[in-house]
Amino acid sequence: MTSVSNIPLSGARLWDSLMEMATIGGTPKGGSNRQTLTDVDAQGRALFQRWGEACGLKLTVDRLGNMVFRREGRDPTKAPVAIGSHLDTQPTGGKFDGVLGVLAGLELMRALHEAGAETEAPLLLINWTNEEGARFSPPMMGSGAAMGIFTEEEVLAKRSQDGAVFGEELRRIGWQGTADPADLQKVGAYLELHIEQGKLLEDGGFDVGIVPLALGQSWFEVTVEGEEAHGGSPMAGRRDAMMAAAPLIAAVEEIALATVSPSGEPGRGTVGVVEVHPSSRNVAPSRVWFTVDYRHGDPDCLTRMGEALAAKAAEISTARKVKASVAPFWHSPLTPFDAILAQRCRDAATARGYRWRDIPTGIGHDAVYMARKVPTVMVFTPCHGGISHNEAESITPEWAEAGLRVLADAALATAGLVK
Amino acid sequence: MTSVSNIPLSGARLWDSLMEMATIGGTPKGGSNRQTLTDVDAQGRALFQRWGEACGLKLTVDRLGNMVFRREGRDPTKAPVAIGSHLDTQPTGGKFDGVLGVLAGLELMRALHEAGAETEAPLLLINWTNEEGARFSPPMMGSGAAMGIFTEEEVLAKRSQDGAVFGEELRRIGWQGTADPADLQKVGAYLELHIEQGKLLEDGGFDVGIVPLALGQSWFEVTVEGEEAHGGSPMAGRRDAMMAAAPLIAAVEEIALATVSPSGEPGRGTVGVVEVHPSSRNVAPSRVWFTVDYRHGDPDCLTRMGEALAAKAAEISTARKVKASVAPFWHSPLTPFDAILAQRCRDAATARGYRWRDIPTGIGHDAVYMARKVPTVMVFTPCHGGISHNEAESITPEWAEAGLRVLADAALATAGLVK
Repeated sequence: MTSVSNIPLSGARLWDSLMEMATIGGTPKGGSNRQTLTDVDAQGRALFQRWGEACGLKLTVDRLGNMVFRREGRDPTKAPVAIGSHLDTQPTGGKFDGVLGVLAGLELMRALHEAGAETEAPLLLINWTNEEGARFSPPMMGSGAAMGIFTEEEVLAKRSQDGAVFGEELRRIGWQGTADPADLQKVGAYLELHIEQGKLLEDGGFDVGIVPLALGQSWFEVTVEGEEAHGGSPMAGRRDAMMAAAPLIAAVEEIALATVSPSGEPGRGTVGVVEVHPSSRNVAPSRVWFTVDYRHGDPDCLTRMGEALAAKAAEISTARKVKASVAPFWHSPLTPFDAILAQRCRDAATARGYRWRDIPTGIGHDAVYMARKVPTVMVFTPCHGGISHNEAESITPEWAEAGLRVLADAALATAGLVK
Repeated sequence: MTSVSNIPLSGARLWDSLMEMATIGGTPKGGSNRQTLTDVDAQGRALFQRWGEACGLKLTVDRLGNMVFRREGRDPTKAPVAIGSHLDTQPTGGKFDGVLGVLAGLELMRALHEAGAETEAPLLLINWTNEEGARFSPPMMGSGAAMGIFTEEEVLAKRSQDGAVFGEELRRIGWQGTADPADLQKVGAYLELHIEQGKLLEDGGFDVGIVPLALGQSWFEVTVEGEEAHGGSPMAGRRDAMMAAAPLIAAVEEIALATVSPSGEPGRGTVGVVEVHPSSRNVAPSRVWFTVDYRHGDPDCLTRMGEALAAKAAEISTARKVKASVAPFWHSPLTPFDAILAQRCRDAATARGYRWRDIPTGIGHDAVYMARKVPTVMVFTPCHGGISHNEAESITPEWAEAGLRVLADAALATAGLVK
């Protein structure tokens, strides 16, 4: 079995399809606003349906609106090999986040169709409902419910901020099917191509990234309680919650950078929300509350990061006579992807002469939920400046094609290309 | 001229009056809610009027509602010596902030009346309208307008957050008089007793503080602009505005403490308001905005603090590839009080055997506006834990009496006690 197929993949056709899909919900700044279960989502789904059926694929839609195209294999009893991602976007989303993975899968189907090629195992191409979580929270609902992370009932009952109900919207746009989403747990392998949403690949001059795992995440809420003081009062004796919080916020980053795994990877730390009480210019705050988002590719390191933060909070509490407490808010364990699939991707990239590196994903994707039940891998393409969830999101056609070829080669190597 | 008088001042009577005034607008937690120009403000004014008239004082009310009691001197042509403060409170105010200064002046008037004593210069006792600025902003309106900082017109037109108009409320409660507030610019000296609203006196075991000056203030607005990044993206290449802001916030304090005047006093620095954009748990912020309140008793030091903060912002901007800018927002110059009056207060405290220290005020008071036109001094009493603007505000009767005696001695030394 070679890791490089001769199927006539067309980077240009993939690019044209990306540009065409982007016009649906296209924004003046060149992005797309194709939020889940809106009229434009339905238009995007209809275009995708036409494209898939044009190359002989058979569409099934499940009760959550997940679209699953099937290309039969020589042995229909074999567990299918699935490729997927999502066509929904953020309100000010770009052209590539999610869409690249779906349309790269489509390009593989088109090329196989053109070549009259056959695979041993069936192939699936999936467009997951509501990956973004922008309109209905949380994200990755379609894949999550399919893998048993959420129940169908809770997903269908979700409400948007403007009061729309997920199930009602799904029916309104005409995309509620009858298939059982849990059928997708029987998939033999799942592969997803996605833009990196970071700068490591671009900055390192890589053509493609192989994703061996999704980082573990530990989110915390930190509360620092001191004592309110007038801005004109002397510094001596103050128990200023903001001045205690500032070095603790800085420590979030210091700890992430200092907690390096045996393989040399540091952690990631973000303080995204800060609230100050009573929030008056001339009052030293009595209370500061902030969030911490910690991620690491090594579970022990992730644990140590939380411990180090708590230790720093205790140290600052003593030094400044405040009460700084670190409370766990949410945890998502490290999710390893399938080692054999990852190696197939590396082999394909090497065989094609691409510059590649391993790169864990710190961001949630449908693949992260799929990996709970199914051998899974992801492939990343670079994206300019790491910018995503943004109309300015951009990649080159060359990057898109490199990702496509590695994805296709690994999928065909897994499914078994017969002719 | 001795600095200690034998006038029969009564600490107990002062205390009783403080407790009685506190029942007007009294709160369940033991504080007072006697906001300016409310019905309870009118009740407090009426009680004060009865008390003043009972010891032979003559009341004048000016067009801004400032209440001015006069006790004639042996030489009515001499510029009067005024004592004053305010009876209005914060919504959840205490019993002493402002009230102590007014009722200590009243106690002096009562004692002089009882003793049948006479002063060379006339004495005034002032209750300023709207010192607190809680209902109508800014604070210190009555004294500010009297000293020409604000115009009468602008004060009378001020609106509260619930739409009440200052001038209408003043007439509604029946306390708009006809006197010209600017007449008070002809006062010969002004003395104000106030609680410290800090902990220096209590922590140092002092009975009383002599206030030689009001600190200069420089307020800034700091904006840190970086780049939004997903919480799952690698740390390398991030331009996280919060991680750049954290050390800059910490520097606000470091600079204040490090900027020490020739007399050994450090500055004061407060970051009271912090706003983070876009304020999402898993997004490294693109922008952080915060306020800085800097105060110092040395004008050069105050200037240097602002310069040091700007330099630190530039340093962080370069190191972290963000844009941190420090914009001036408001400035209030250092206000020296009268050296002769301050020395009279020190002499009185020493003669009475009190433990005293010099202590600048970092907080605005009516005395700070008075000092622009009139020789002025302030005397501070300790307050427990530095707590004020709070129903838990508390002082001891002994502290109140010590402040009263120093205030009275200095006022009489200035006015000239005849018999």
